[in-house]
Formats: sequence, C-alpha cells, structure tokens
Amino acid sequence: MNFVGIDIPIDMNATMRRRGELTLETDRRHLMHPGTHASDHASGELDARLMTRAQGIRIEDHAGRSYIDAFAGLYCVNIGYGREEMADAIAAQTRRLSFYHTYAGFSNDPAVELSRRLIEEWAPPGMKKVFYGMSGSDANETQVKLAWYYNNVLGRPRKKKIIARQRSYHGSGIATGSLTGQPKFHAGFDLPMPQVLHTASPDFYRDARPGASEAEFVADCVEHLEQLIAREGADTIAAFFGEPVMGSGGIVPPPSGYWPAIQAVLERHDILFAVDEVVCGFGRLGSRTGSEHYGLAPDLMSVAKGLTSGYLPLSGVIVSERVWDVIERGSREQGAMNHGWTYSGHPVCAAAALTNLDIIEREQLVSNAAEVGAYFQARLHEAFDAHPLVGNVRGVGMLAALELMAGKTERRPFPAAAKVSQRVAQAALARGLIVRALGTNDIVGFAPPLIATRADIDEIVAIARHALHDVSDALSAP
Amino acid sequence: MNFVGIDIPIDMNATMRRRGELTLETDRRHLMHPGTHASDHASGELDARLMTRAQGIRIEDHAGRSYIDAFAGLYCVNIGYGREEMADAIAAQTRRLSFYHTYAGFSNDPAVELSRRLIEEWAPPGMKKVFYGMSGSDANETQVKLAWYYNNVLGRPRKKKIIARQRSYHGSGIATGSLTGQPKFHAGFDLPMPQVLHTASPDFYRDARPGASEAEFVADCVEHLEQLIAREGADTIAAFFGEPVMGSGGIVPPPSGYWPAIQAVLERHDILFAVDEVVCGFGRLGSRTGSEHYGLAPDLMSVAKGLTSGYLPLSGVIVSERVWDVIERGSREQGAMNHGWTYSGHPVCAAAALTNLDIIEREQLVSNAAEVGAYFQARLHEAFDAHPLVGNVRGVGMLAALELMAGKTERRPFPAAAKVSQRVAQAALARGLIVRALGTNDIVGFAPPLIATRADIDEIVAIARHALHDVSDALSAP
Repeated sequence: MNFVGIDIPIDMNATMRRRGELTLETDRRHLMHPGTHASDHASGELDARLMTRAQGIRIEDHAGRSYIDAFAGLYCVNIGYGREEMADAIAAQTRRLSFYHTYAGFSNDPAVELSRRLIEEWAPPGMKKVFYGMSGSDANETQVKLAWYYNNVLGRPRKKKIIARQRSYHGSGIATGSLTGQPKFHAGFDLPMPQVLHTASPDFYRDARPGASEAEFVADCVEHLEQLIAREGADTIAAFFGEPVMGSGGIVPPPSGYWPAIQAVLERHDILFAVDEVVCGFGRLGSRTGSEHYGLAPDLMSVAKGLTSGYLPLSGVIVSERVWDVIERGSREQGAMNHGWTYSGHPVCAAAALTNLDIIEREQLVSNAAEVGAYFQARLHEAFDAHPLVGNVRGVGMLAALELMAGKTERRPFPAAAKVSQRVAQAALARGLIVRALGTNDIVGFAPPLIATRADIDEIVAIARHALHDVSDALSAP
Repeated sequence: MNFVGIDIPIDMNATMRRRGELTLETDRRHLMHPGTHASDHASGELDARLMTRAQGIRIEDHAGRSYIDAFAGLYCVNIGYGREEMADAIAAQTRRLSFYHTYAGFSNDPAVELSRRLIEEWAPPGMKKVFYGMSGSDANETQVKLAWYYNNVLGRPRKKKIIARQRSYHGSGIATGSLTGQPKFHAGFDLPMPQVLHTASPDFYRDARPGASEAEFVADCVEHLEQLIAREGADTIAAFFGEPVMGSGGIVPPPSGYWPAIQAVLERHDILFAVDEVVCGFGRLGSRTGSEHYGLAPDLMSVAKGLTSGYLPLSGVIVSERVWDVIERGSREQGAMNHGWTYSGHPVCAAAALTNLDIIEREQLVSNAAEVGAYFQARLHEAFDAHPLVGNVRGVGMLAALELMAGKTERRPFPAAAKVSQRVAQAALARGLIVRALGTNDIVGFAPPLIATRADIDEIVAIARHALHDVSDALSAP
C-alpha cells in the first residue's frame, strides 16, 4: 500500500500498533457501535479493527494491515478515499461559511448550486425540488411524511399506508426500520409500525416457483402486490417504496420487466412511487441513477451515500412536480409545513457533494462503472458460476453478490448458524479484501469504488476465490 | 464587519449582489427549505437571504449586509464561525481517513477519543457509552428505540409509552415530531404517534395559577405528571423526555425545585429519564451540560448542535451504565441489536467535535458563558423588565427570551395573526441583528455564540431595544 509521503520505519509501526490496541480498549469501554453485538464487543470477543488511513480503493488498519475495500465503505465511497480535492473544498467552505441554517428563507450558495445540478443533471425528468437531510434513513422518513402530507392536502386522510418489500433496506429508525423488510431490524423494537405493509421481494433465484420463467415470476410479484392492495383497499395506500436494485437485503436486481409492471399497478391505484436511490444513485449501476437504469418515474426519490461519497453526511429527497404542486397548495391552505432538520442544506456538506459530482463527471466514473462493471460481472460469473458453493452470481455495474448454497443444484442453503457468508467475509479480510456478508444468509456482497480498474477487479475476484476456497476447505475438513 | 484578508471594491460588491439574486432565483426554483412556507418561498413573497460568509459572531449575506448572529445559527455555533483550526482539523482527517463505518467492530481514532472525552470529561456521572448519529432528531429517535429495547429485554413488553412535555422540541421526524409538544409539528402529518403522551410544560410565567408560588406551580406540574401516569398505568410508561431548559418551545427555564421533584416521580415509577441536551449541552447554560446545571441523572442523554458547533453534522446518545447493562444482556440473549446509521461515528465529524471541544476548553467558553451570560441576563432585565411590550424576561447563561404581551399587567397576549415576535425578529434583522421568533407566540429568543464579549452583549441588547421600539411604533401608529 502506497500512502504518498508516508514512510514508516518498523519500530514506529510497533508503536502505532500498541497505540491502536490501547485505542481499541477505550473503544470497547465507551463506544456503542451500530449493528454490533454489545456483549461480544465489550468483552473483546468480537474481532475489532481500528481503521487509520485510506487512499483510493485501499484502507489500512492500526496494525499496518492493508485491505482493498471492495464494499466502498458501505456502498458509498464512489470516488475512492483520501481525495485532496475533497479536503480542499471542504476546508475552503468551512473557512467561508462553516454553517448556517436554511429555515425561514435563509440559504447558501453550495446548497442552491447542488439542488440545481441534482434536478437539471442527475435526476430523471419531472423532478422539481430537493430537501436535504444527513442520512438515507432521514430521507426515507421525510418521504413517508411527505406522502402522508400529500394525501392530507388532497383530502384523503385514510390513504396513508406504506407498502415496502420483504428484504428491503430503507433505514433503521422507527419509521424507516419499519419499511425495512427484514425481521432482524424489527426484533426488540416492536416494529414494523402498523401503517407499513410488506409485499414480495423480487428475488427470482430464491423465490420463483420451480420452473417459472422471469415473466411468470414478475406476474407473481404483481399478483402479490395487487392482492395486498385489494385486501387493504387502494384508498388506504399512500406510497410504495423500492430500491431499484435491492441492496442490504442481498443485492437483488429486479427480473426483466419487473419495474414497468409494478409501476403500472401503482399508477392504476394512484399510489406514490417512492424510490430509494441511496445505494444505486450516482453511478453504482453504471447509470446516473437506478431510476435512469430501469426507466423509473419516481414521485419521491431518496439520495445519500454516493452524493458525497461518504466524505460527509448528506442526503436529499428529490420531489417531483406532481408532489410539489400539492405541497405548495398545502402551504397556501394551512401555512408552512413544519418539517426540517438543523443541518438541512448544510453548506459544508453541500460543498463536499459539489466537488464529489465534479470528480464523478470529470473522471467519467458513471461510464467507468458501466464498463468496468460489465467486466466485473463477467469475471465473477467466470470465477464462480461453476463453483460448488455458489448457487447464484448476480449484479449490475459495480454492485454484485454471490449467493452461497450447501447444495448447489437443489438450492439447499447452509444452516444460518454456520454463518458461512460471515466466514467468507472473514477469510477475505484475512487476505486483505473487504467484502460484506449480507441480509439473510448466505450472501456475499461486492460494491467497489467506481474508480476501480480492470486490474483492481482481477485482484478482487482472485482474493474472493481464495477466501471461498479457505472456507470450503474448512467446511469439508473432518 | 472585518473579514481578514478580504477587501472588496464597490463594483465587485455589485457583481456579487447580482450573482446572489440569480442564486436566490435558483433557490426558489429547486431548493425545498425546512419549516418554510412552500408557496410564499417559491413565489418570492418570502424575504430570502443568501448567507455567504461568517466569522466570529458575525455573518454576511450576498448583498454585503452584515449581522450579529445572536442565535448562533440555531443555538449551535458555540465557538463562533470561520475557525481556521476547525477547517485544518477537518481537512487533515479528510486526507487521512475520509470515512469508514463503525459496524461489525470497525472503529476509528477520532470516534474513540471523542467517546472517551464525552464520558470522562463532559457527561454527568454514571454514563458509560456513546452511540453516534448526525442530528438531534436521530439521537432522540435512538433514545426511544433504546427505551423500548430495554423494556423488551427486561420482559416488560407493555412498558413502552413515552411521556414528553407540551411545548417541548425534540425533532420533527415521525417519532421525534411526536415527542415535540407543539401542535404545529403534528398538523398535516397525523402525529403524535399513539405511544407518545404529553404532560404539562414547566412555564411558570404562563401556566401557573394566579397567585401561585413557584413551589406550588412545581407541585401542580408533579400532580399533572402523576395523574397521567396513574391514568395510563406506570407499567405502560417507558421513558420521560425533557430538555433541561426548554428550547424552541419558548426558552423556558424550569422553576426552582422542578427537576428534583420530577426525577423523584420517575424513579418511583421506574421510568427512564431521557434528557435532551441538544440545545443545553456544551456550555449554553454556563455549565458543561444542562444535566450538570440542574443536577440531573439521565438514563439516556442526547447531544448534538454544540458538540461540533454546527461545523459538521454530529449527534450522540450517551447511555448510562444502568441502560447499557440491559443492552449487553439483550445481546447475550438475542444477538446483535440491529440499529445504526451508515455515518455512525463518522471520523471527519468526530475530528471536528474533538477540535471544537479543544477550543471550548482552551478558551474556557463554559465559564465565559456563565460570566458573560450572567451579564447578558442582567442587561436584558435592565433593558426590558419595564418595557410596556415585554411581559417576561427570562433565561440562563447564553440562552434568553423576551415574552411579548399586548397587555403587560394582565398578561394579555397579542393575537397570533399579528405575528409580533416575527416582526421584532424582522426589525432586528433590518438593523443587523439575528434573533428568533419562537414556538407559540410571542417569544423572541437569544442564544449568542459562547465567545460573545460584554461589548457584544451591549450591542445585541441595544439593537434589540431599537427593534422592539420599531415594532412598538408601528403597532401604535394609527
């Protein structure tokens, strides 16, 4: 790993390692980690790593171990780590205007310019306004509130339920964790809220009836949705939430024809289409957005992650003309809508997003994601289609997954307790590669930075092969 | 206004003004502002201002107008604007490690060191862990989730309702907007959620029975809370939320004896005390926290705003040993708790917080807030106690409010439609001072940066007097 200008002698490395261990002790004492086993972490049972520096697609820990980050943080570091240009832009805006709120008609240049670029250059046609938050979760929560507000203004107070999909991920708040269609995000928290319903996930590999074609499976998904709507009454359903490609639920691209069919149902029942672009937006699929990729026409659209490549927290809800017109009407009839965050439109975060978009555009990272992404998918198929542990290889652009199976032909999963995908992720880590065990067992996810080259992809696939081999060996050991 | 190194000739100012107007046009077209009248903003009816640069306690707009920001952004810019040291620390961390998540045992130095300092140096005794988010809203939502989780682990699945107070502000999400005890945050969004109940606000000036002493009013507040608990059943109440000094509901310090009496009730009924320190934390009251100021023993505690002085979005939930022990038990019994955000423990935001704390400590801004704050309160009483439009002058440290009344002696408010506090804020703005019209009519709030000097305070109070005079003149005009 080559960190420009840093050349550390061996004894210094030992000192840093020691300091790292001390820091991890403090970490166990005082830091509560997201999604982490509290007791195993506090006791030291959980393998902990202090990440200390990162450049491009590579990241290093306190012990001097270097990793290729083939998950781009959490699908977010699209432009890669450690960009001087980002540091400079962030520092310059901090010096100029380190913060001001955007309530009550106040504004700032970076937030305005970012809104213009998002609407004019990045969003699909028909979008009008951007409302800013800090995270994908808060953006999705804003979407729910706007869907409710919309129907209140239109005099349809019963049209409030939200349909999301099983295995989706839309956040882990009270409302957004309810949208998330994974029981492990509900357990212990009395979720989902009663207003949230779940329909079928579009997982052709796992959920299609034996022998069904993609078209037949799509018809089943549509039928499931139609039945749900009929059961509840279309006049009680406000919005449908979907990720263009399902992310943390297992990286599930939709089967061919899925989105046009679903959109037709939503239109027929006057249900808002709330698109969650948190993972897919800003080049991940080799298109500007997942909506562009699949020809979606969102009424509301959440963006986050790739918007700043994770350099600073920023999210947005992009509001269509259709919804905005009703919001304006609401304000005329009822006065200002009281929704917002202190950091809505934070000038420093917006400045980071602008420079991030500059880099994506200048380096043509969207088309790189399409080209290198196609190469990536091909190499994954080549390496794993015939692998005895791999039941399914799938993905779009720079987003991909291997679904592991104990019995490949009969699609027999491993027992959850065997934690096979976690073991693969651990084996990869030991070999200097970060991938992620995802959602329901046993899926290994990849989402490399969009700057990855074909050579990087070759290295990622090669290490992943070795890691799978390590686990395969261990599984077949007596 | 003296921006170091910037000296702009007059024709350049004209160019910047023109550019600012163009930007505001784009703003009206594409930016959806928080808490803002959608139609009046889009049409240009609403007076808009593009803030362009800021230094210390002063901020400037695109037309070159300079303002003293006597509200510190939104009670957050405690160390003042435009600190070189903050820009440098943020840029350095961006270069080193621009992001990595803290799921699954990953960590980073700044987040760990910040946790240590928060627990060891800033939080009251008995606190153990810090969970990070990006905003006060998400921190309060995490508190609700933790309170529910806590009772599920303890086998008390019915003990889930949350009591907050009328006029409180805890955010504007679905859960946090429900906690917020102001109807305008509920309207249009079908809030509050059924799990949230509201008890009396501690506003002695407005709500005490005629002739009641503070002690009698406190007894009434306790009685109101006790009745609510009795009505619902203590075994159904999980937590009580409170801001040490109520913020956006009108800057309401508690009457003497209020918090010890309330805490005794909570203890008696085994109800968690969830303290919202978003406004009060990090020196605002002239103490490290509101909890320190009033001798509170929180079970859970939210911090945000002053944690980074608004330079970057960061919040935290500080978890007590009592609650943490149950969380650990939960993980042993049920596995990892699935709650978290991509940007939990963001290294750049944590680095900003560390430097912010360095500055607060080195410049002794907490004791400055106590000393200059006392001077501030005295000057406000001197200037406004006898003012015919001012019914009440109140505050603690660098947080203060004037409550305006049409009839001072009989406490007769202005009609809401007259928007008197908004007019005072507008008049102050025209004179180069930012104050804020708050909550229920008609309250004018002050929360200057903690770096304000006595001379700054004199200027703030003098301009506020003039602004009130402007409105008073207009009101008495035929």
